[in-house]
Amino acid sequence: MNVHQLQRALNGLVDRVDTPAPIVVRDVMQRNIDRMQAFAVEHGLGLRPHVKTHKCVEIGRLQVEAGAVGVTAGNVGEAEVFAAAGFDDIFLAYPVWPSGTKGKRIRRLAKTARLRVGVDNIAAIDALADAMGDEPDRLQVVVEVDCGARRSGAPPEAAGGLATAARKRGLVPAGVYTYPGHGCFGPDSREPAAQDQEGALTTAVRSLADVGVTAEVVSAGSTPTVAFATGSVITEIRPGEYVFCDLDNTRIGACDEDQIALFVAATVVSDWVPDQVILDVGTKALGREGSPEKGYGGIAGHNAVLAKLNEYHGFLALPGGESRPRVGSVIPVAPNHVCPVVNSFEELIVTDRSGTSVERWPVAARGLLS
Amino acid sequence: MNVHQLQRALNGLVDRVDTPAPIVVRDVMQRNIDRMQAFAVEHGLGLRPHVKTHKCVEIGRLQVEAGAVGVTAGNVGEAEVFAAAGFDDIFLAYPVWPSGTKGKRIRRLAKTARLRVGVDNIAAIDALADAMGDEPDRLQVVVEVDCGARRSGAPPEAAGGLATAARKRGLVPAGVYTYPGHGCFGPDSREPAAQDQEGALTTAVRSLADVGVTAEVVSAGSTPTVAFATGSVITEIRPGEYVFCDLDNTRIGACDEDQIALFVAATVVSDWVPDQVILDVGTKALGREGSPEKGYGGIAGHNAVLAKLNEYHGFLALPGGESRPRVGSVIPVAPNHVCPVVNSFEELIVTDRSGTSVERWPVAARGLLS
Repeated sequence: MNVHQLQRALNGLVDRVDTPAPIVVRDVMQRNIDRMQAFAVEHGLGLRPHVKTHKCVEIGRLQVEAGAVGVTAGNVGEAEVFAAAGFDDIFLAYPVWPSGTKGKRIRRLAKTARLRVGVDNIAAIDALADAMGDEPDRLQVVVEVDCGARRSGAPPEAAGGLATAARKRGLVPAGVYTYPGHGCFGPDSREPAAQDQEGALTTAVRSLADVGVTAEVVSAGSTPTVAFATGSVITEIRPGEYVFCDLDNTRIGACDEDQIALFVAATVVSDWVPDQVILDVGTKALGREGSPEKGYGGIAGHNAVLAKLNEYHGFLALPGGESRPRVGSVIPVAPNHVCPVVNSFEELIVTDRSGTSVERWPVAARGLLS
Repeated sequence: MNVHQLQRALNGLVDRVDTPAPIVVRDVMQRNIDRMQAFAVEHGLGLRPHVKTHKCVEIGRLQVEAGAVGVTAGNVGEAEVFAAAGFDDIFLAYPVWPSGTKGKRIRRLAKTARLRVGVDNIAAIDALADAMGDEPDRLQVVVEVDCGARRSGAPPEAAGGLATAARKRGLVPAGVYTYPGHGCFGPDSREPAAQDQEGALTTAVRSLADVGVTAEVVSAGSTPTVAFATGSVITEIRPGEYVFCDLDNTRIGACDEDQIALFVAATVVSDWVPDQVILDVGTKALGREGSPEKGYGGIAGHNAVLAKLNEYHGFLALPGGESRPRVGSVIPVAPNHVCPVVNSFEELIVTDRSGTSVERWPVAARGLLS
């Protein structure tokens, strides 16, 4: 979709949509969904998209209709929303500590869906088993290993010990997963991180085999590295951002600008300062994903970036010669990182290129963090 | 409140609260409310707190009960929530462009509350007057002027022209306001910014007088500069963050650490990496308010900071010698900037020092950005 079509679509929406608002271009999104599904099928992988990026049941359904094997959630609340909407295969890819009411909630979830939960330490394994009471076998656990992101995850060679601990408590150790977070820093970081991921998962699978556990699930992330995640040990991939794409992914070569399917419509509200206009989009809409160097959001089809953000004000820097949009005009902002953006809104405005068809899809899992 | 009391309160809550969760210590918050009210009274100013920081009707009521003259909102949605809850004096301190349905919404609001709206250009004045139809006199407008923040706001000497334009269209020009955003960068920036604010407002008031408009409202922001906003021309102050305080305000000397009334309770979920543990609090809870130098959130009573954030993972760096909290323990995270935090949650967990009394107050205006 070119930027003129996008601006026309935006202009078609301006009487019906209050800004800032997240605009999803449906056919661009559908091509993203189909493209990733085709990639997964081509490489014999299951696609288990991460719902944190869209938090929207309608989009999850499109992904499953296209052939996704299930969904990935980042916390119990996201899992609950999708389970309540009928999704019956959910991987909570996070080392949840079941404090507060999370234990009860996980136990309930495990009855309504085929639920897998991440674990990376024995204390959490015990706490989850305690929470499952007399039915630990209803909960599958997937051992998280670190592949270089230095975040959560046990050393890959420790995976067998954790699987054993789970089995002792009656839980069902289903496999291993990791997240190659060190693969999103630049174009050259993607493939090495994917290789680290392959190596770590291979070691972890062997560690499970050594204790007599077959890894049914060998799960890999992420949109930046997925193109290289075609090693033979991996069974499924968990990318999230691909559904909308964003500028950070284009910068590292994980997608093209014409794959960006989500823009934030913002209105010019003030234009007194030379070489700048103020948009009604700020950190509460976009998050603060960026830097002084790359800015905090781009403008589709232009070189201008948001140089600075306050909570409700976006400072759009206009390089010399760049035409100055009038107060009242609506501008399509392309996010640097799309996940926080969706989480800022109650609903997505889903349209086509002409801006005539408009649907409003609730961000059903919005604000669910626990 | 000292950190041992805070930790005890947190431990008292751990079975009832799923993390991450925003914990408000009620009596610390009440002292903040009373302290700012006393300051305003002492200097003959009206206190009109900004609701964007708490977005919570219960807290707005405490502020009004303490003596606030009304509330300040940052967008139409925030104004609507508080008007619906009975707040009858609302200043939408933002140069709203009434596109989409905003015009109708503003017109409705102007019937239910004494509503003031910010303006900084003639096009928006005309658009607001158009939206008010045959009853423009129900809408008071307040001219925004720039005092050095280089954000929105007309040059102060242009205020009279804008007031005249408003009056010609039948709107009611009520006064002037500004926001000294350049006063939050460091301890030494606060007083100079407040002086700029005084100067700009004085010029603006004179500009209004020159066209025969009395500035009933001369409105100043913000928590970082309010201590110096005691010049004789100012009639009201609009600070928001003071109600909870945060680490950024303590760093610039606008409040003390023991005034911090909001913490995010977070659980340690992983501890494999030396000198680090992972908390279940990330950018979706805290925003990305910080820097590599100061970190992205502090830990009450400790030197440790969150060195890095992903969406659901907080990387807590533990300097050598710092004791290592166990997986499953709950940690009170002090935000750098509190406004985005509240906007991440559905409800505030309001407790006292013992953690025995727990109330849940909805973040009623959560996620309202337009």
